[in-house]
Amino acid sequence: MSELEIIEYIRKQFPIRNKEIVKGIGDDGMVFRNGYVVSVDSFYEGVHFDRTYYTMEAIGHHTMAAALSDLAAMGARPVCALVSLCCAAGMRLEDIKALYSGFKVLSKRYGFDITGGDVVRGPGFGLSITVIGKARSVMERSGARPGDGLYVTNFLGLAEVGRHVLRDKLLHKEYRDSIKQHLFPEPRFHEARSIKKYASACIDTSDGLSTDAMHLAEESKVRIIIDAEHIPIHSEVGEFCTNHHIDALDHILASGEDFELLFTAGNVPRQPGLKIFKIGHVEKGRGLYLSQKGRTILITPTGYEHLKP
Amino acid sequence: MSELEIIEYIRKQFPIRNKEIVKGIGDDGMVFRNGYVVSVDSFYEGVHFDRTYYTMEAIGHHTMAAALSDLAAMGARPVCALVSLCCAAGMRLEDIKALYSGFKVLSKRYGFDITGGDVVRGPGFGLSITVIGKARSVMERSGARPGDGLYVTNFLGLAEVGRHVLRDKLLHKEYRDSIKQHLFPEPRFHEARSIKKYASACIDTSDGLSTDAMHLAEESKVRIIIDAEHIPIHSEVGEFCTNHHIDALDHILASGEDFELLFTAGNVPRQPGLKIFKIGHVEKGRGLYLSQKGRTILITPTGYEHLKP
Repeated sequence: MSELEIIEYIRKQFPIRNKEIVKGIGDDGMVFRNGYVVSVDSFYEGVHFDRTYYTMEAIGHHTMAAALSDLAAMGARPVCALVSLCCAAGMRLEDIKALYSGFKVLSKRYGFDITGGDVVRGPGFGLSITVIGKARSVMERSGARPGDGLYVTNFLGLAEVGRHVLRDKLLHKEYRDSIKQHLFPEPRFHEARSIKKYASACIDTSDGLSTDAMHLAEESKVRIIIDAEHIPIHSEVGEFCTNHHIDALDHILASGEDFELLFTAGNVPRQPGLKIFKIGHVEKGRGLYLSQKGRTILITPTGYEHLKP
Repeated sequence: MSELEIIEYIRKQFPIRNKEIVKGIGDDGMVFRNGYVVSVDSFYEGVHFDRTYYTMEAIGHHTMAAALSDLAAMGARPVCALVSLCCAAGMRLEDIKALYSGFKVLSKRYGFDITGGDVVRGPGFGLSITVIGKARSVMERSGARPGDGLYVTNFLGLAEVGRHVLRDKLLHKEYRDSIKQHLFPEPRFHEARSIKKYASACIDTSDGLSTDAMHLAEESKVRIIIDAEHIPIHSEVGEFCTNHHIDALDHILASGEDFELLFTAGNVPRQPGLKIFKIGHVEKGRGLYLSQKGRTILITPTGYEHLKP
């Protein structure tokens, strides 16, 4: 059973009938005719975060940033969030206060409110975050056109390096950016505002470059070619991969949770103060291809599968 | 640590700043200025439902009805729902299809769409449902006024009887209404439409009469007096309580999940086809009181506490 099978089943069984809804399942969020965008993400201890090195503040920041990232990917500004907490035995009020202090940093930074939620007991610690944003027009996954370039807002693969470093207790000072990206990712609202007028399609890199690029290709019904030589490699990713005898490209294609914006556009003028890399292009056809050393080959997504044990 | 402590903490830490939000934490749902109402509820196996007798269809129906009930209590019509699934090991696509068939019955009956969600692995089976509704004006918990009557839309205590009957494998045919109320509760949209023009405050009976009435009293800053002699007792509740040497009134004060509407109003004209019982009244002051055999005594809520093990 894959996430895709489930989504396809639900999509077929529940065609949208309310006229006030312009987009249902299949994008980063659902979209109302009046411009409200809604997205839900759930996170559980042991699956989505590891409390041996995650503080409650970091869990709050990480999960809220991950949820908000879906709004950024659609070009919406955040309005509010509802948090449903699943409390494990032994949870204290202090833990919850620390979790919320992680939310508060982002709430202040991006001006959204915490407007509700739910608190229940459950089989383990986890939380489900509903974020609501607003946009005059939304960026969708389905707008990529042949001739567009493929762009990304930053380096990729850092968060996954950070996860390994923290889990395996490697030397922290050598992997500062990676650790920050894993514990405290930043929703790319600022970048989204800058690229919105140029982008034809957009997604956030939550599941890994190959899987997220495949989503763009599928929803837009185009072929996407990733240009291996143009993928920027952060020095920490390079070092980590060398030390661990991993191919840096393979690492980047498979590693999620950077929450960068992966988008297509006809042309993107230089954006002062923003890192934007062109890492491929869009063609007629279908599927995901990798161009490397003069050869272009069909590749299979290797990113995160939500239901794999 | 109680749910109330957590809610109070969040309320203080996160005062609402966005002008498009007219109500945040503290009611059945949050409310946007444009009339959209949003509520989130989470449910986990072993805490909120028991799979030894709950089919996946029944889980779908029960959880969606419980989530929708918050919209009914605010007098909103349902527009859409987003479902975030937490999958335990061994979960099959067939299980998920059955769960969604439970959603579908209600989706057809009340005309709302399933517009998104999330599917992740977790420590056990559970789900979080975000429901979005719309209302020209909402019923809140805070509007009860001295002089109002206290009303409820149906019998209370049935769902809890149903839970006992199914768990303890009692004779089903003697407890048909109770079992139906436990497995397949009905969100009271129809009733909400009828009472909305009269109701000054409203809540759904999810945590038990005493706890829910206390919420109305606290949010409205009034005293609520429940009149023991006027609480209607369904024959199945009466029989169950007699057989188990439980006081029926104590049972009803403590038993939640009926998802009826508990509301206050100056006067409610007879509603053809609707069961509406007057079970108390509102006075100046604070707190929850029970009037019985000529005496009126202060009582403590005995309903469901979400974080009690």
